[in-house]
Amino acid sequence: MKLAQDQSLTLVAGGAGFIGSHLCAELLARGKRVVCLDNLQTARPTNLRLLEDHPNFEFVEGDIVNALPVDITSRAGQFERIYNLACAASPPQYQADPEHTMLTCVVGTDHLLRLAETSGARFLLTSTSEVYGDPEVHPQPENYRGWVNCTGPRACYDEGKRAAEAMAFDFARMGRADVRVARIFNTYGPHMHPDDGRVVSNLVCQALSGRDITIYGDGSQTRSFCYVSDMVEGLIALMEGDLDGSEPVNLGNPEELTVTELLEAILQIVDRPVTVTHLPLPTDDPRRRRPDISRAEAQLGWRPRTPLSVGLARTCAWFAEEIAGGDVQDPVTVPVAAE
Amino acid sequence: MKLAQDQSLTLVAGGAGFIGSHLCAELLARGKRVVCLDNLQTARPTNLRLLEDHPNFEFVEGDIVNALPVDITSRAGQFERIYNLACAASPPQYQADPEHTMLTCVVGTDHLLRLAETSGARFLLTSTSEVYGDPEVHPQPENYRGWVNCTGPRACYDEGKRAAEAMAFDFARMGRADVRVARIFNTYGPHMHPDDGRVVSNLVCQALSGRDITIYGDGSQTRSFCYVSDMVEGLIALMEGDLDGSEPVNLGNPEELTVTELLEAILQIVDRPVTVTHLPLPTDDPRRRRPDISRAEAQLGWRPRTPLSVGLARTCAWFAEEIAGGDVQDPVTVPVAAE
Repeated sequence: MKLAQDQSLTLVAGGAGFIGSHLCAELLARGKRVVCLDNLQTARPTNLRLLEDHPNFEFVEGDIVNALPVDITSRAGQFERIYNLACAASPPQYQADPEHTMLTCVVGTDHLLRLAETSGARFLLTSTSEVYGDPEVHPQPENYRGWVNCTGPRACYDEGKRAAEAMAFDFARMGRADVRVARIFNTYGPHMHPDDGRVVSNLVCQALSGRDITIYGDGSQTRSFCYVSDMVEGLIALMEGDLDGSEPVNLGNPEELTVTELLEAILQIVDRPVTVTHLPLPTDDPRRRRPDISRAEAQLGWRPRTPLSVGLARTCAWFAEEIAGGDVQDPVTVPVAAE
Repeated sequence: MKLAQDQSLTLVAGGAGFIGSHLCAELLARGKRVVCLDNLQTARPTNLRLLEDHPNFEFVEGDIVNALPVDITSRAGQFERIYNLACAASPPQYQADPEHTMLTCVVGTDHLLRLAETSGARFLLTSTSEVYGDPEVHPQPENYRGWVNCTGPRACYDEGKRAAEAMAFDFARMGRADVRVARIFNTYGPHMHPDDGRVVSNLVCQALSGRDITIYGDGSQTRSFCYVSDMVEGLIALMEGDLDGSEPVNLGNPEELTVTELLEAILQIVDRPVTVTHLPLPTDDPRRRRPDISRAEAQLGWRPRTPLSVGLARTCAWFAEEIAGGDVQDPVTVPVAAE
């Protein structure tokens, strides 16, 4: 499907990924014409299947590390909003080719910022709680500068996103583009990869398949999980909000729980006996992670609304269907690292 | 001068700059054949004049942000050492085009790392004490993760260098290149730009020309100044040392003094009455900066040897000559005390 040449468009880079596919769906539901640009590196085919027949949806395959496809640049004048969600986001995926991860963050973001400049479009960068590293301040407000190891195996992503933020705010300071920067904390829901090593998908898939449950460390490390529909609402609110855009905004759920508590919540839904195996914590794994979302609440009137039990039930149901449908081959044979 | 096609070469990217030109001279003095790659963005013409007639020196003009010149790539097999000193390094210079600064750090370093991979050359990245930001730990050891504002006006450089370090260590982890990373602290000496806003060149030039002396803040912020010949020795020792290269190494002078004390030391050499004007501190200006060089001492047997009084006398003498020779646009010349 190729969208008409005379209408304003929203570009979603990384729109075939986990959060990106939900964002595309919500934008379509709100009547937007959406062009999805994705290299299909970590996207699941099913994510796009739900969108590709929509009359206001167009898919363009391309990697933002390279020059943008002519299908994008030839319509620069039509874009009024550009969302950048393009980057592998789980450690096993982004560490498989760290050079590509860094270039996606820096060169890819630069290409999209230049497109925003040419188009006069507003640009939203999805940054990450990883910019805070293994934080010494808890919860993390946006002005906390982080505790990131810039020489370690997570640096390609953490430092890549920090560099992408630097570029975005430089474009804003130079008057080249109107930018918004979201720092996304742990998000979960349907369309997650079963085998990308994230703790929610790991535990849900292991519980559903009756295999041993893998916990890294003693399970006392904490995370805060935001259901994906809440995250998408936050991203759109940030993009459309009446802000000056000169500061990043945390988006996430401030409800903090340990990995062990997460497992217990999953086992209340997937009611079956399990065996838990403990493995060593990966290098630079954050011990605690929880957003201070007071800026998002004050400036966007946004906060997550979906209770963990509801979000987990939807997620378990979706994974169960995927496993039944054969889209999930074997959720537990891939070596994983915790988020 | 084009060097022969059958000899091993050392590449110095940024070799026409302040530290780079001294490095090229020292490598030539040690019998190396040196190819200098520089975009002449911040290089002074006089820096190259001293080198260009040397039979073992070749200059190639090019910007590492772009694909490397054929004059470089066609001789990939000859390079056995690659030094990357290419980046504007003073705030007014690197902030003039922050996008280019970031891309120089990330894309430029990537191009040179790929060349090192192809060549089988050892690669040295000159990183910076700026990766520590405005440090809360003093002095700064290499395992201090820093206090960097990734959204501010210095981030294009600070985060660019952090990202470049991340890339270098990823190349090392992946077995793609043998890398060394130096974190350079404040360095001074001949070949500095008179107008790049660095405190030593500012104060020396202002004192020599009899202009008002500009101090940012109250002058109580501290710096540690390493004379350039000491720095060059440290860089070569790091490149040639028997290390595993898996960790960055601080290079700098741990002798800490306030900006006011620096001014007093300069005025002992340039003996004339001055008027001091105080201006506000720039955004994110570090309050203190001093290297912990115990790693360099233990692993390289290196430490700075040039006393401040000696280094400053040489620097003042050089700037006085530059001013007299018309290379520095300032008519005022004054006698300078001997070393």
